[in-house]
Amino acid sequence: MEIYDVVIVGAGPAGITAGIYAKRARLSTIVIEKLGVGGQIVLSDSVENYPGFPEISGYELMQKFEEQARSFDLEVEDGEVITIQDEGEYKLVKADGRDYKTRSVIIASGAKPSRLGVKGEEDFIGRGVSFCATCDGFFFRDKDIIVVGGGDSAITEALFLSKIVNKVYVAHRRSELRATKILQERAFSNPKIEFVWNSVVEEIIGKDTVEGVVLRDVVTEERARLAVSGVFMYVGLVPNTEFIDAGKDDAGFILTDEQLATSIPGVFAAGDCRATQLRQVATAVGDGALAAMSAERYLG
Amino acid sequence: MEIYDVVIVGAGPAGITAGIYAKRARLSTIVIEKLGVGGQIVLSDSVENYPGFPEISGYELMQKFEEQARSFDLEVEDGEVITIQDEGEYKLVKADGRDYKTRSVIIASGAKPSRLGVKGEEDFIGRGVSFCATCDGFFFRDKDIIVVGGGDSAITEALFLSKIVNKVYVAHRRSELRATKILQERAFSNPKIEFVWNSVVEEIIGKDTVEGVVLRDVVTEERARLAVSGVFMYVGLVPNTEFIDAGKDDAGFILTDEQLATSIPGVFAAGDCRATQLRQVATAVGDGALAAMSAERYLG
Repeated sequence: MEIYDVVIVGAGPAGITAGIYAKRARLSTIVIEKLGVGGQIVLSDSVENYPGFPEISGYELMQKFEEQARSFDLEVEDGEVITIQDEGEYKLVKADGRDYKTRSVIIASGAKPSRLGVKGEEDFIGRGVSFCATCDGFFFRDKDIIVVGGGDSAITEALFLSKIVNKVYVAHRRSELRATKILQERAFSNPKIEFVWNSVVEEIIGKDTVEGVVLRDVVTEERARLAVSGVFMYVGLVPNTEFIDAGKDDAGFILTDEQLATSIPGVFAAGDCRATQLRQVATAVGDGALAAMSAERYLG
Repeated sequence: MEIYDVVIVGAGPAGITAGIYAKRARLSTIVIEKLGVGGQIVLSDSVENYPGFPEISGYELMQKFEEQARSFDLEVEDGEVITIQDEGEYKLVKADGRDYKTRSVIIASGAKPSRLGVKGEEDFIGRGVSFCATCDGFFFRDKDIIVVGGGDSAITEALFLSKIVNKVYVAHRRSELRATKILQERAFSNPKIEFVWNSVVEEIIGKDTVEGVVLRDVVTEERARLAVSGVFMYVGLVPNTEFIDAGKDDAGFILTDEQLATSIPGVFAAGDCRATQLRQVATAVGDGALAAMSAERYLG
């Protein structure tokens, strides 16, 4: 079995950038991706803050990344990594499709939306509960829906949904948003968006599909029903890091040093999956470039 | 005098990205730039490793950055920052054109090419000695020139110059290059490029313009003259950080924590000017985004 110089886990912005840098450094490289090239950002209808593109969809942006990676013959294989074992001379990356031997690994496996963990949530996934406005928005044309969360993702997607649905409620557990100001302004001036402050979703109700939510006001402790056909969740991220035994923070994000080395020699982490201050395409590409150069230095 | 939320020093990739993020966060923001928007990268004929653009000139790429910044009404003013004084309630940024009061500062002032410090170097700047192949390459059409250095910049520019000049010597003080492998391969297979290994330039000679260099072999200690009309220097970077009194490393690069905060509260650093592992457009944009969000958090 060939021993790769570097196996990259995940083909989002961090993984693809690491791949471009690794291939330019002439490292034998393979990327393993469980879903499809692009990562979470392909679910974004509009990206305005990746420098170089005033406005572009996440999908289009990642197509450009992929095309560029292909110009350096970067290989991307389908597969979900199950474990990574240190065999001394090499690391064994075990995926559902096949195994890979490699001298170094870059974990760029990203993160997925957190679940609320409330009654009805699991049951109604695909029947009114969604984590992706771009994917599912059009099923709710002219209906009323609720977005849960107060960060950039929640507000970006509320704005997107307002163009499709009849009414967007945004439930946030605090009395102000975390989202960047320009997004807040757009949301506050949008007549289709109504905020439900200091409120959390306690239950999702319905028969075959979602018919409403039970909201609890965290200040007054009052409960109220709100009739909606859809619930879109943007309440944080859970890292995709179960398969790797490196040092992590309490939430499971991988700890790295300033070279993006993890606690396991030869294993690096980049992008949303690592314990970092900011999770953006702009920061992911910086991480990807650095992780590849650090892997190269480790191998040399 | 208006007190800004954030003054950004430098309009390269890091500074412009910080500006985009700051404006989207609705911080009152101004960028001060002493030369022109774009920074060092505008001197690059070709950028292949900024994700999203398979191949683009540094100048074109930075025009796209600038256009995007303008869509958020980012102001960029001409000026060279002389000092930054902490006045307690605000910081006073003193530039040659005017002074600015601000609650926070992002230093994104970049770096400039190092000088060799050899005889003839200063005298022949503009008359055969150059730090910019894209700017000056065409003056050496069909002539012989020497590039000094062995990193990515040296080899990228040697490749660019090989399309214009008769012959490119590359003098490097070691017996192998630091440049990424794909660039090495291109240079090694280029019939116009000849490497002079283990060699340093000891003197630049000529009358009105450069006529040659004296090379010293660092292994044999032998000296030899080489007739060339041009000398292009790519032997490292000196940070543009004289004006700020923050903690720095021995080479003058600004030390930062993981939020890119410097030793002065409210002053952040991003991009090439800070003590960092890698200096690329990809890492600069990550820095710029993070510095702006850290400044916002500091202000809030």
